[in-house]
Amino acid sequence: MSETLWDVERLTEATRQSVPMAAQTRVEVVEAERGRVVLRMPLEGNGNHIGTMYAGALFALCEFPGGTLFSTTFDASRYYPIVKGVDISFRKFAGTDITVEASMSEEEAARIAAAADEHGKADYDLVMELKDTDGNVVAISTNRYQMRSHGI
Amino acid sequence: MSETLWDVERLTEATRQSVPMAAQTRVEVVEAERGRVVLRMPLEGNGNHIGTMYAGALFALCEFPGGTLFSTTFDASRYYPIVKGVDISFRKFAGTDITVEASMSEEEAARIAAAADEHGKADYDLVMELKDTDGNVVAISTNRYQMRSHGI
Repeated sequence: MSETLWDVERLTEATRQSVPMAAQTRVEVVEAERGRVVLRMPLEGNGNHIGTMYAGALFALCEFPGGTLFSTTFDASRYYPIVKGVDISFRKFAGTDITVEASMSEEEAARIAAAADEHGKADYDLVMELKDTDGNVVAISTNRYQMRSHGI
Repeated sequence: MSETLWDVERLTEATRQSVPMAAQTRVEVVEAERGRVVLRMPLEGNGNHIGTMYAGALFALCEFPGGTLFSTTFDASRYYPIVKGVDISFRKFAGTDITVEASMSEEEAARIAAAADEHGKADYDLVMELKDTDGNVVAISTNRYQMRSHGI
């Protein structure tokens, strides 16, 4: 993995400017490097009628890293990602701020880019574990993405 | 099916008061009766960087009806629902306001209530089709719920 570090404040700002739900939920990029990102969402303002984080907020937290990881790993002038689907399971009540880490190996990134270069598009999955501040997994998701080449 | 009609403004207000994301996305209950509800979400304010409805907003729109349908169909003094998971697939770009209809037959409602009475809980699925104003299905989801009896 490259050790290139990304400016997390700039990534947070870019996400919030392009997607109103990111601003509303106050999701934050807290770590970012090529192939690995960590995002956090505050419980406050993202709750439900029983005071835990609402399922829709947890969904957004599992989906935002797809774009962030893409930004740190691929050349956005050549490719763009779309989300095809998400299967999310809620395991425990989410009673604190929640974090999620997403990562992709150099080998997987190279495979996806090569497939997109050859076919114009390439499918890939990202598995996300959403954790509370005690490290408990409150939700797990499998996100189905497709990377596409611009202009194809 | 009973012909009892529910006050959609009151249901909308209740949803928005209990879940901030419902207020932020301005989701609206537009039809509600025992066993059937219709909800709508405006595109404006719920977009992404390419001007279509953000996946997280579509997710919220597919999940909110679970609670609304529960309210119109079951006795909230005896039971409450939790969402165990959702598998959502995005089929087309969502370029307009989006609506979703959720329904449950009397037979299914009776089966769920009887199972919850006997075992304290009962699993059930709801399939949602999210449609644009031309009637195109932009997303489809299978929502996995569990109804539980209070006090068990």
